[in-house]
Amino acid sequence: MDKNIPYKIYLSEDELPTAWYNVRADMKKKPAPLLDPATGKPVTADALSAVFCEELAKQELDNDSVYIDIPGEVLNFYKMYRPSPLVRAYFLEKALDTPAKIYYKFEGNNTSGSHKLNSAIAQVYYAKQQGLKGVTTETGAGQWGTAVSMACSYFGLDCKVYMVKVSYEQKPFRREVMRTYGADVTPSPSMTTRVGREINEKFPGTTGSLGCAISEAVEKAVESEGYRYVLGSVLSQVLLHQSVIGLETMTACDKYGIKPDIIIGCAGGGSNLGGLISPFMGRKLRGEADYRFIAVEPASCPSLTRGRYAYDFSDTGRVCPLQKMYTLGCDFIPSANHAGGLRYHGMSSVLSELYDEGLMEARSVEQTAVFDAAVKFARIEGTLPAPESSHAIRAAIDEALKCKETGEEKTILFGLTGTGYFDLVAYQKYNDGEMSDYIPSDSELEASLSKLPDIKG
Amino acid sequence: MDKNIPYKIYLSEDELPTAWYNVRADMKKKPAPLLDPATGKPVTADALSAVFCEELAKQELDNDSVYIDIPGEVLNFYKMYRPSPLVRAYFLEKALDTPAKIYYKFEGNNTSGSHKLNSAIAQVYYAKQQGLKGVTTETGAGQWGTAVSMACSYFGLDCKVYMVKVSYEQKPFRREVMRTYGADVTPSPSMTTRVGREINEKFPGTTGSLGCAISEAVEKAVESEGYRYVLGSVLSQVLLHQSVIGLETMTACDKYGIKPDIIIGCAGGGSNLGGLISPFMGRKLRGEADYRFIAVEPASCPSLTRGRYAYDFSDTGRVCPLQKMYTLGCDFIPSANHAGGLRYHGMSSVLSELYDEGLMEARSVEQTAVFDAAVKFARIEGTLPAPESSHAIRAAIDEALKCKETGEEKTILFGLTGTGYFDLVAYQKYNDGEMSDYIPSDSELEASLSKLPDIKG
Repeated sequence: MDKNIPYKIYLSEDELPTAWYNVRADMKKKPAPLLDPATGKPVTADALSAVFCEELAKQELDNDSVYIDIPGEVLNFYKMYRPSPLVRAYFLEKALDTPAKIYYKFEGNNTSGSHKLNSAIAQVYYAKQQGLKGVTTETGAGQWGTAVSMACSYFGLDCKVYMVKVSYEQKPFRREVMRTYGADVTPSPSMTTRVGREINEKFPGTTGSLGCAISEAVEKAVESEGYRYVLGSVLSQVLLHQSVIGLETMTACDKYGIKPDIIIGCAGGGSNLGGLISPFMGRKLRGEADYRFIAVEPASCPSLTRGRYAYDFSDTGRVCPLQKMYTLGCDFIPSANHAGGLRYHGMSSVLSELYDEGLMEARSVEQTAVFDAAVKFARIEGTLPAPESSHAIRAAIDEALKCKETGEEKTILFGLTGTGYFDLVAYQKYNDGEMSDYIPSDSELEASLSKLPDIKG
Repeated sequence: MDKNIPYKIYLSEDELPTAWYNVRADMKKKPAPLLDPATGKPVTADALSAVFCEELAKQELDNDSVYIDIPGEVLNFYKMYRPSPLVRAYFLEKALDTPAKIYYKFEGNNTSGSHKLNSAIAQVYYAKQQGLKGVTTETGAGQWGTAVSMACSYFGLDCKVYMVKVSYEQKPFRREVMRTYGADVTPSPSMTTRVGREINEKFPGTTGSLGCAISEAVEKAVESEGYRYVLGSVLSQVLLHQSVIGLETMTACDKYGIKPDIIIGCAGGGSNLGGLISPFMGRKLRGEADYRFIAVEPASCPSLTRGRYAYDFSDTGRVCPLQKMYTLGCDFIPSANHAGGLRYHGMSSVLSELYDEGLMEARSVEQTAVFDAAVKFARIEGTLPAPESSHAIRAAIDEALKCKETGEEKTILFGLTGTGYFDLVAYQKYNDGEMSDYIPSDSELEASLSKLPDIKG
C-alpha cells in the first residue's frame, strides 16, 4: 500500500463543505431552459412553485450562484452519516493485478442505502421551512423513497411515495423500511391518480417506470393542499445538493495529493454522477485541471449512448415541464432491468449539455456483466454493492484492466452510490444463472423517439 | 453539542489495536474449565483440535496471556471495515430531553451487518493457516453465517452454513447474501446430519435453535476431512477476537476524555457484550476504574436472569464439551423471537462468571418494548437497528430516562451491534401491530433445567 494513503479516508466534521457547488455557474453554455408544456415558453419560478417548494424552484433556475449555503439544520443532519469515506480499493487493485490506483467514494453507509439522502434532507427541509404539511414523491429502486421517508420523519412531515411496481414487487422489504419511517407507499402505476389509471388502461400489466411514477406523484402533490413534490434525480437542484459528494471527494483528494485521471459514475437520471463530478468538472471548465469523466448506463435504458438530445417531457404523464436532455422518449418503458434506479428515459439537462459538448463520455453495459463485476467486488472489497452502483464498478474494473495491458498507472475514481441489501431477488437470479440481458432494438427506440414533441432547442 | 466531541469519532488506521485483549488473564477467579462429556474431565487442546483449528483450541484454553497479537492478514482485513465509529447520540439525547450523554459503538457498517466479521475473519484465517479445505458453522439471525461466508470467500475456503430454520424462512435474502459469497446454506434442523434427523423426529415442526444448528455443524465438521467448525459466540476465543470492539472504544474514549458510567450490550451468547466490555472490565478488575455493565437479553430466552449457573451442554445434540455457564438447559427451545441472534440457551462462560461474581448486571426485556425502542432510534438517529442490538437501545433509553428524572448527567455507552436491513419481516409485524411477547413459564424453564447434567462445578 501507499504509505500516505489509508484504506479509508474520513474527513473530520469541520472539513465538511458548508455550501453546495453549482456547476451551472461555471458552464459557458448553460443547460437549455425548462419549457412550459402549455405555452412552449421558459417556466418561471412562480410557475414551478405550484409543484416544488419556492426555494427549490429558485435553485432549479439558478444558473449563476457558484455556491449556495447549506442550511444549518441540513448540515446537522449530514453529520448523522457524513462525511462518507473515500476508499482506496487496495484489495481490488491486488486482485486485478493492475498498476492502476482505484478509489471509490462510498455513499452506502446510511439506512437509505445510498447517496439519495443528501438531497432528500435538503428538499424536505425547504418544505418544512415553507410550512407545508407533506411531500409526495416517486421511487424506483426504493432508495430515494427511503431517503425521503427518513427526512420527513426527521422534520415531522407527511410522506406519500409512489414506488415503481417492479421494484415494489421485487423489494417488499424496502416498503417496510419506508413504513417504519412513517411513509405511505403505493405501487405505480396505481388507481389513485388520473394518470395512473390511464397508464394502467393503456399498458395493462405494465411493471411501471420512473417517468410514470413521477407523473402520479406530481398529480397527487398538485391536487393535495399543503403538499409539494420532491424528485430524487434529473433536476438541477438535485445535482446541486449532491455536489456534497464531489466536494468531500475533492477535499480528500487535495488533502492526500490524489489526482484522479478518470472519474466514473453510474447514470440513471444523473444525481450521483452529477454530484460526484461537479466540482471536478468545475476545475475542467475553468481550465484548472483535466479529467476524463465516464457516465455508465444500462444497455437496457441507454439514454446518453442511444438517445436523442432534444426537448422532451420528463414524465410519462406529460404534466411536468419540458426539458432539453438526452432522452429515449417519455413513452419508453424500459425492460424490467434490476437496476431499478437507472430506469429513466432521460438524463439531467446539466449532464446532457456537458456530454453534448464532449466534456464527458458515456458507455452502456449489460446486466450480467454488471453482476459479474458486482459479485467480484463484493468478494474482494467486502461490500455487497447496489446493482446501480455496479455499473460504475464494471467500468472501473474495465479501465483498470486496460491499465494492466498498457502498464499505465492511472488513478481511477468511481462513485459507489449504495449497497445491494435490498436487491437480493436480483442477486438470486444471478446466483441461479437465470439473469438475462436486454437491449432494445433500433425500431423500438425509434418508436418512442418519433413521438418527441416538436420543439427546437 | 459538546465542542470537543464530534458526532462520530473515527480513529485513524494507525490507532487500531494490534493485539486482542484477553480478559480471562485479569480475572482472579477463572471461568470453569470445559469438560469432556465422555470422561467428565477438563478437555485438552488436543481433544478440542478435533473440532476447532489448533490455534483456536489454544486460544480457547488460554487463561493467562493478557494480549494475543492480531495476525497481519487479519489486521489488513479489519481495515476493510474498521475502525468502526463511536457515535455521540446527540439527536437521541435531544429527543429524550435527558441530561445523560449517550454514545454507541456502531458495528453495522459492513455487509455481514454486524460485529460478527471481527471473529469470523480470525477463525477462518487460522483454518487457512492450518491448510484446511473449509469450515462448517451455524447461524441464527444470519449475520454470523454471512460473516463466515465473507471470510471464506476472502481466504478461498469452502463454507457450509446451518441456518436456524426460523431465520432461514424469515430471512430468505440472508441466504442469498451467503450464496453470493459462495457458501452452502442448509436450514436446521436438517436431514443431512444424524443429530438433525433425530431432532426433527423428536420435535416435528420445530423452528430450530442455535443449540441445534451448532450440533449439526459440529457433526458435519468432524465427519468431513479437512474441515473444522467455527462458532460465532459463547466461546472464549470469540470474546477474545471481539475485544477489538472494546479496545477501539476505549482508545476513542481516552482520546476524547469520555468516561462511561454505564456500558450496555445485548446478550445472546455474549460475543458483542463480551467484546465491548472486556477492556473496561479489565480496568475494573485491576481496580483502575469502575463502571456499571448491563447485559440485556430477551425475556423469551432469559439465560442470565432466570437460568442456572451450572455445567451444561453447549449444544442440543450434546456432542460439544460441557461448559459451566448460566443456562436454561440445552433442551430449551426458545419461542420464535425475532431476535434470532439472541436465541441461545446458555451464555459465555466468561460473562457467566463475571455476572456470578456481581461484576456485571443483567436484565431482560420484552420484544414489543424492544421494537418500540428500535423504531424510535431509527427515526431519531437515522439507522435502522437489528432487533438484537435494539435490546441494548431499549436499556440505554431507559437509563437515559432515569437520568432525566434524577437530573444526573451520566455517560451511557452501548453497543449497536448491527443493522436491521434483513429483519424487515419482524419490522412488518411490528408495523402491522401483530407482534406479540412471550415469556416462558417457571414450569417450562424447570422442565429443561431439570435435565441439566449432574456435575458439580
